[in-house]
Amino acid sequence: MANFGFRRLAVVAPYAPPWREARSAVGAPELLASAAETGTLAEAVAGCTLVAGTGTLTYRKPEQPVVPLPDLGPLVERELARGGRVALVFGSEKHGLTRDDLSYCHLLVEIPTDPRQPSMNLGQAVAVCLYELAARVFRQANAAPEAAAEFEATAGVPAAPSRTLDRLAGVVEETMIAAGYSPSSMQAANRHDLRLLLRRLAPAERDSRRILGLFRRILWRLKRVPKGR
Amino acid sequence: MANFGFRRLAVVAPYAPPWREARSAVGAPELLASAAETGTLAEAVAGCTLVAGTGTLTYRKPEQPVVPLPDLGPLVERELARGGRVALVFGSEKHGLTRDDLSYCHLLVEIPTDPRQPSMNLGQAVAVCLYELAARVFRQANAAPEAAAEFEATAGVPAAPSRTLDRLAGVVEETMIAAGYSPSSMQAANRHDLRLLLRRLAPAERDSRRILGLFRRILWRLKRVPKGR
Repeated sequence: MANFGFRRLAVVAPYAPPWREARSAVGAPELLASAAETGTLAEAVAGCTLVAGTGTLTYRKPEQPVVPLPDLGPLVERELARGGRVALVFGSEKHGLTRDDLSYCHLLVEIPTDPRQPSMNLGQAVAVCLYELAARVFRQANAAPEAAAEFEATAGVPAAPSRTLDRLAGVVEETMIAAGYSPSSMQAANRHDLRLLLRRLAPAERDSRRILGLFRRILWRLKRVPKGR
Repeated sequence: MANFGFRRLAVVAPYAPPWREARSAVGAPELLASAAETGTLAEAVAGCTLVAGTGTLTYRKPEQPVVPLPDLGPLVERELARGGRVALVFGSEKHGLTRDDLSYCHLLVEIPTDPRQPSMNLGQAVAVCLYELAARVFRQANAAPEAAAEFEATAGVPAAPSRTLDRLAGVVEETMIAAGYSPSSMQAANRHDLRLLLRRLAPAERDSRRILGLFRRILWRLKRVPKGR
């Protein structure tokens, strides 16, 4: 991260002893010392408008669009130009991102690798991704700031950040339960699907607030339905 | 190397014990087992027509042309196209390439890094260089930028047609009324806003049907609220 000029690191539920050690080591880069530490991925990406997951996709069918790393630059550039914030999410060395982790992602990034050896070392995968973004996005912007300005003029409003979508998902889920929309055995699956649905819709902050208002009203009303009806 | 489909590794004057161990380890990649071992860099690059050295250049004035990594692809491509053989040379983790090593190089490759943290881990530097070459040279033929376009067009699936949105709007509006969401004087304005909102969200056909299903269930339930509550 330091090599490529990235500054904001958030570590989710780190295993405490090595993390504490790495952070406080003599000569530890500034970005380790200032890293955010959160309990959940949801908190880590709460302020982000575009969340890109990484990992090997050979063993599962992804639910989001998969973007080859060389094509990620323009998407990130557009999102930054319209005032959004972008997160790249990496899983653990051993297990990668879980299905639940992936449900917070708008898209998945795939590093084009040889099919005979697709699984990369975590540190190398991070280096490759950040090299790509640094080389294609930030350096380009410095070289030709007019291009960035042009983007801003044509781009729309950024999507609401992850935390807004999570708040909305909470109220919609409560509404589903109050309306008896599905058996309780389906609630985990529904929650997962709802998270993905909201990311596909990608409402802007203002629209999110409207939808939230509508669902709050519906929920309030549903609670007046007498029991057993 | 295996991740990016590179096969020919030559190791110059390796420190014997760890090298022997790495080579013979269970599950060692094929390319380690078949790696060439030479006493000098001169032997290792003997058959190559273009030799590119790598490393941090902050502490010495290079004698060869310095090519930023993102610009290396076309040079390699041209060399391969005319039947040449290309070598990328990496120094040791600790000391990098010596001045003598560099004298075998036609050019030096520089990975664009943050000037505050220019020195990279060897494994990461190798990964970044090979990713760049694999992505720009070898994969160019298969390159499929459609995936990025797919994401831009909201998740690859076309948005539902207007008629679906109108059906959805009808049920949402009925729900708003049933939930007492706004006074009847606002209904025309709300209908207008709702229509625009649904077009901003641009749900796909399948998502539209899901949302419709949820609102139908809510509506059915709301109608069981006793009058006057």
